[in-house]
Amino acid sequence: MELSSLQKARYQYVPKLPEMLRSGIADICVNEGEETKSAADCEKIKALFPNTYGKKEIVFQKGQNTSQSKKQVVGVILSGGQAPGGHNVICGLYDALKSTNPENVLYGFKNGPIGLIEDDYLIFDDDYINQYRNTGGFDIIGSGRTKLETKEQFEIAGKVCKKHGITAIVIIGGDDSNTNAAVLAEYFAANNTGVQVIGCPKTIDGDLKNEDIECSFGFDTATKTYSELIGNIGRDANSAKKYWHFVKVMGRSASHVALECALQTQPNICLISEEVAYKKMSLSQIADYIADSVEKRSANGMDFGVAIIPEGVVEFVPEFSVLIKEINELLAGSKADEFNKLSTWNEKYAFIEKGLTKESMDVFAILPMGIQQQLFLERDPHGNVQVSLIESEKLFSALVSDKLALRKEAGTYKGKFNPIHHFLGYEGRCAFPSNFDADYCYSLGYNAFMLIQYGYNGYLSKISNLSKPADKWIAGGMPITKMMNIERRHGEDKPVIKKALVELDSKPFKYFKERRDKWATETLYIYPGAIQYYGPSEVCDITTKTLKIEQE
Amino acid sequence: MELSSLQKARYQYVPKLPEMLRSGIADICVNEGEETKSAADCEKIKALFPNTYGKKEIVFQKGQNTSQSKKQVVGVILSGGQAPGGHNVICGLYDALKSTNPENVLYGFKNGPIGLIEDDYLIFDDDYINQYRNTGGFDIIGSGRTKLETKEQFEIAGKVCKKHGITAIVIIGGDDSNTNAAVLAEYFAANNTGVQVIGCPKTIDGDLKNEDIECSFGFDTATKTYSELIGNIGRDANSAKKYWHFVKVMGRSASHVALECALQTQPNICLISEEVAYKKMSLSQIADYIADSVEKRSANGMDFGVAIIPEGVVEFVPEFSVLIKEINELLAGSKADEFNKLSTWNEKYAFIEKGLTKESMDVFAILPMGIQQQLFLERDPHGNVQVSLIESEKLFSALVSDKLALRKEAGTYKGKFNPIHHFLGYEGRCAFPSNFDADYCYSLGYNAFMLIQYGYNGYLSKISNLSKPADKWIAGGMPITKMMNIERRHGEDKPVIKKALVELDSKPFKYFKERRDKWATETLYIYPGAIQYYGPSEVCDITTKTLKIEQE
Repeated sequence: MELSSLQKARYQYVPKLPEMLRSGIADICVNEGEETKSAADCEKIKALFPNTYGKKEIVFQKGQNTSQSKKQVVGVILSGGQAPGGHNVICGLYDALKSTNPENVLYGFKNGPIGLIEDDYLIFDDDYINQYRNTGGFDIIGSGRTKLETKEQFEIAGKVCKKHGITAIVIIGGDDSNTNAAVLAEYFAANNTGVQVIGCPKTIDGDLKNEDIECSFGFDTATKTYSELIGNIGRDANSAKKYWHFVKVMGRSASHVALECALQTQPNICLISEEVAYKKMSLSQIADYIADSVEKRSANGMDFGVAIIPEGVVEFVPEFSVLIKEINELLAGSKADEFNKLSTWNEKYAFIEKGLTKESMDVFAILPMGIQQQLFLERDPHGNVQVSLIESEKLFSALVSDKLALRKEAGTYKGKFNPIHHFLGYEGRCAFPSNFDADYCYSLGYNAFMLIQYGYNGYLSKISNLSKPADKWIAGGMPITKMMNIERRHGEDKPVIKKALVELDSKPFKYFKERRDKWATETLYIYPGAIQYYGPSEVCDITTKTLKIEQE
Repeated sequence: MELSSLQKARYQYVPKLPEMLRSGIADICVNEGEETKSAADCEKIKALFPNTYGKKEIVFQKGQNTSQSKKQVVGVILSGGQAPGGHNVICGLYDALKSTNPENVLYGFKNGPIGLIEDDYLIFDDDYINQYRNTGGFDIIGSGRTKLETKEQFEIAGKVCKKHGITAIVIIGGDDSNTNAAVLAEYFAANNTGVQVIGCPKTIDGDLKNEDIECSFGFDTATKTYSELIGNIGRDANSAKKYWHFVKVMGRSASHVALECALQTQPNICLISEEVAYKKMSLSQIADYIADSVEKRSANGMDFGVAIIPEGVVEFVPEFSVLIKEINELLAGSKADEFNKLSTWNEKYAFIEKGLTKESMDVFAILPMGIQQQLFLERDPHGNVQVSLIESEKLFSALVSDKLALRKEAGTYKGKFNPIHHFLGYEGRCAFPSNFDADYCYSLGYNAFMLIQYGYNGYLSKISNLSKPADKWIAGGMPITKMMNIERRHGEDKPVIKKALVELDSKPFKYFKERRDKWATETLYIYPGAIQYYGPSEVCDITTKTLKIEQE
């Protein structure tokens, strides 16, 4: 197996732990804090989690280790989309587990939660784990999107744990996976299985965030990778001086990634989905907003620019959501057959015109033909529009182009508009974790084992004070139920961890808002360059601007 | 102006020169070699370059500097597409020029060769140039694609040089720009202007390469950036285990970029345009070749993969070139109006069917509809098909999908095929230059000034022995005419520098060919990670695999 030079070098990197975890296993003790209650809907959450609700927050500190010395057999699961640092969570968990007792065993369930149900696993040893230290990807055991949420699944999970003598499960995942971890913990407690469950906060999207989770892991590395590329694109735009680059970045349900990339690179435009929804902006208003920048820059001799578009933005445009809903209804059941029988696009277009309300038809009419056709021709197995496939970077550049044509007629715009499109997503989810993510993830895993060792169940591995150097980080645990509220999902009241959207009164958004008009008309691009793992500390050890601004 | 931490750190980097240029200006002397002749068509080239043909190759060495001590006023031009390191060529040139005589002056002509014609320039000083050391992009003076090739342009260029007392012009560009540099040098010599011209070999495409140019600058950084991303994508594929990634990389006229990325990352598939042309492969054969890998991997439980597609590959498919030619003829002149009047795609399709030969219609018929429409609907101002806009990564994944549907019917293929598409181009052209490119470019610029100082004209700045550490590099110059031959371009015999294609009997291609069958069926991805500027030398100072294999 041939390895890159960087991979070989990264094997040698020793991740930094918080000070309180550095003194050796024998010297880590617990400091219990207050009892907790859920973020909202306390009574309902308490009723759903009678065995795990209201537990105390804890922090680790230096002192005599008083944990029970039983043999631990831990199972670990990677859940959902890849995020840089997942391997290090497992390495930290493994190292703490083996340091505590060489007889302890770590199982890795393969390809996501399904591995636990199907009892598909491997057992970690030094040789195997050493191949994955400080590397990107989830290939160490694979990941998957099966959800652990039904009673039947929990029963099977319980049997598999019993079979192997498993004492704890660590679930590395996003908001849904950690919600499910809490439900599984409650089930295990209610049934006296003796199996503990610990969650670790993962997602590059950055939307698993609250007063206890300063940031989810992977966000730092992914946004650094996207910012590297956006910086390179900005420099190219500023050199060639003839293209407008529309860069879509991952993040369907929140715009944290777009905002962080904007803070790092200072593009001319960055849409924030949450603001679009709050202001109830129409497609036409958004296009005008971008066209304003294009026009002003052009008047100053700059027929080039960079615009960041969050992946999910069209879903936040109210009129567009209505259109999608109407299309789904228009094509429900037998009406789809009727539509499909029409042989030409002209005939189909007439069918659409007849079926949509006037308001939605007005929205539909301004879309470029490629997107019109996609909305009607590429539907999912249930016949619904596949909103995630919409190339919103192309949609907006086409709408802007139409606006500019009108402005040219009106004589206010005299420039040239050449758009180029990019989508940055898969390029960043499996990068080698930055030093921050390597340290943070290793600490999360190490800390997860200490929570297990001290008998906690239904807890999230919590590392905080993250904008400071690693030795100042604080390690501890928080009951997952503390982060929960009740939300209506698919017609049912469900206990869930609240998804963190970009708050329009948050410090990072305000920082952006105060500067964006200047960025839109001038050329103030920042070029972050590639992630550095070596070199000056201010180059290789800093985390995100979001976190810095939040904690300033 | 806010700067990234990396940019500030890179300002401190001191590029490494070849040993013979390190002893200070006073200790650099010339060692003249043999008289040269052109790569082919010697008599014709000699007749076209009576004043600059047949000059001697030279190498610099340590010894008493014997150059004339006149004041130098040099103009520098960036020509064509961005390539990492262009700024360092100018920094090296500036430092050598100022070390030789603080009274020397460096002009930067803006936005490409047009800057010389329009007399649009800036004069470099320390404050200005220090902002660009070791950075990517061409924004220091901008670049452009105007060509300097007509007598009228040369006359104006001569006047501008005379006006400013310019003694030499340095042109940083690709094969065409260096060809034009040679023609300009001859013009200046024939007209006794006393102005010298020196070329520097730039292009990320890697196709400006011959026995005197081991590699063009920018190729190292751009391919490292693309390989970082392809490695990340490969790791993602190997983690999620459900997508086939089709990654198109820049390089229209040669596949050096694709080949180098393949050597760095070991994808399952990498098409090489030159091989496609040599074997006269059809679209269907290429699709079958890829589908074979998809099918075999699927049979082994791996419904995922990575395929690298060079940007220009469809232009190398003989049957596709014929199709394009026929389409251009079919839509020439008034026939385009006739076609445009047809209102539905069905009517247009019938028109196309009638107009194309049976062979071309067979090719056209297998294309996905999106590409069929693009060929006919998005034409350039001359009415020609815009081949460069064809999304060949989507074309091939669609053709492979069709092949797999047939194989599924035949029962040989049982997997799932989910393709995802990427295009890597602008993301890499303006990255911070790797240490290799930073050193190489600085040396090219420094060396260019030494050629000027010693009175050479029509020379290329030549740095060789590049797979060795910088102190072992050899600095010198080569008459540009040595690299020229006569080629038929637009119906005329023209003296040009031969474009370097991937040779099918070259060591790098053979290395790839010997291994690719194994790569196609197994998962042997290498993950190079982001370019490192600091850290272990084997991580941050190595150059391309192509160069390593060539010079082994």
